[in-house]
Amino acid sequence: MRIAFVGTGIMGASMIMNLMKAGHSLTVYNRTKSKADGVVAAGAVWKDSLAECVREAEAVITIIGFPKDVEEVYFGPEGILAHAPEGAILVDMTTTSPRLAKRIFEEAARRGLQALDAPVSGGDQGAREGTLSIMAGGSKEAYDKMLPVFQAMGSRINYMGPAGSGQHTKMANQIAIAGAISGVCEALTYSRKAGLDLEGVLACIGAGAASSWQMNNLGPKMVQGDDRPGFLIKHMLKDLKIALEEAEAENLDLPVLALVEGMYETLTGQGRQEEGTQALIHYFE
Amino acid sequence: MRIAFVGTGIMGASMIMNLMKAGHSLTVYNRTKSKADGVVAAGAVWKDSLAECVREAEAVITIIGFPKDVEEVYFGPEGILAHAPEGAILVDMTTTSPRLAKRIFEEAARRGLQALDAPVSGGDQGAREGTLSIMAGGSKEAYDKMLPVFQAMGSRINYMGPAGSGQHTKMANQIAIAGAISGVCEALTYSRKAGLDLEGVLACIGAGAASSWQMNNLGPKMVQGDDRPGFLIKHMLKDLKIALEEAEAENLDLPVLALVEGMYETLTGQGRQEEGTQALIHYFE
Repeated sequence: MRIAFVGTGIMGASMIMNLMKAGHSLTVYNRTKSKADGVVAAGAVWKDSLAECVREAEAVITIIGFPKDVEEVYFGPEGILAHAPEGAILVDMTTTSPRLAKRIFEEAARRGLQALDAPVSGGDQGAREGTLSIMAGGSKEAYDKMLPVFQAMGSRINYMGPAGSGQHTKMANQIAIAGAISGVCEALTYSRKAGLDLEGVLACIGAGAASSWQMNNLGPKMVQGDDRPGFLIKHMLKDLKIALEEAEAENLDLPVLALVEGMYETLTGQGRQEEGTQALIHYFE
Repeated sequence: MRIAFVGTGIMGASMIMNLMKAGHSLTVYNRTKSKADGVVAAGAVWKDSLAECVREAEAVITIIGFPKDVEEVYFGPEGILAHAPEGAILVDMTTTSPRLAKRIFEEAARRGLQALDAPVSGGDQGAREGTLSIMAGGSKEAYDKMLPVFQAMGSRINYMGPAGSGQHTKMANQIAIAGAISGVCEALTYSRKAGLDLEGVLACIGAGAASSWQMNNLGPKMVQGDDRPGFLIKHMLKDLKIALEEAEAENLDLPVLALVEGMYETLTGQGRQEEGTQALIHYFE
């Protein structure tokens, strides 16, 4: 397939490599050109503007950081909606708001384009290994056409329903994580105060009813004081803010989500936004 | 070993059966005699009083519900501390407060007895199958003597440190669970409001970074509206209250724990105390 790929950051670059490996032909664009050097050296075709990049694409894939960037890239005068050719399928894989996903879907439909929201989880490792989890919303027809493309990037691909459903599912994922990771932090903080051996505690409780991916993967980093990112606090905070806004718009009171969002705000105020989400443990010090 | 076992409820009865299978000889006592019928039929020797039950024991094991019951059974004039023979090892396997565990340990020492706190996790199924997780505090010497007995009841046995450390570890377990289960509830509540298929959401997010024992075991029950207990709300609330009191005594602010404890209080006020912990989902309705 002729794919235009916008966003060649850590995630995007790995996903592009896997798409090329699967035989797709790629044009690429990124705000900072140098970040595309690797994929261009590997055979992707650089384009000097977004309009150029998408002009002949059968599918356009974006993965680009923050909702306001997504808005600009889709709705700007030089943007994707204005320049993608009729019939193209637009796939935003950024984690962004379900509302924005619906706006893109509707504007795309008005212009004879199709759109999917398809955020991912699995991080840089999943992107590199082609084992991302991809949760998609939009028309089932567009999803079916894109499935082989998704399969080149991910190993667990789920169609979740109409436009916005992919983003909603990702929000559910982040909300569950907020509860799990804060529980691990509080359990370890309690254990430290009680004078317990923290690695012993994780070994003891990490296989039963208290176990979680967060405990087993990030608990040891918390104990070792390793704040290096897998997943950045600034990205987690963005996601939790979206989830909270979405919940508030629906008059839904999610107090644990609100609490954990506030904790990450506090840590961001302390300059920890480039650390990994496990640095939440420092909130309790 | 000659073991006196006090508390023949769902957990206790199964643990007694496994101890007898391993060749130990058991005397038993319970507040409600009829609840001991099963184990007595299987060969345990009923005693009409606590004092009688423990008088010739090498080890005394208790698992009996609430901290005030534990207090009475140990410190009452007809209780274990007054009547256990010198050298006996007293093992409280009830989930109770670390403070109470230390008091029992100290009073036992004054009387020439040894004491361990050794709460369990793994529920009625773990008790039946002899696969409980047992987290023990007290002297290492007493622990080593009891290890073969623990091995008859559990499959993951951990020595956690001095008196109270078993209870502290169990508290850490419950604190982590509070975060994880509330995250699952909020994620499902959000998903329902967003119109997503909830089983689809669990299938999608239940294998990655959001996954937890709570999500994978209790999430489906929440979705199906199955409130039947595995673990009772009244017992969870007891545990969370102990954890919270312990944290407050240490000037430790654990806001997620406090929030979830309050949720279970609310559900208890609604008469849900005999339902399973997964009924937390109703808090959000």
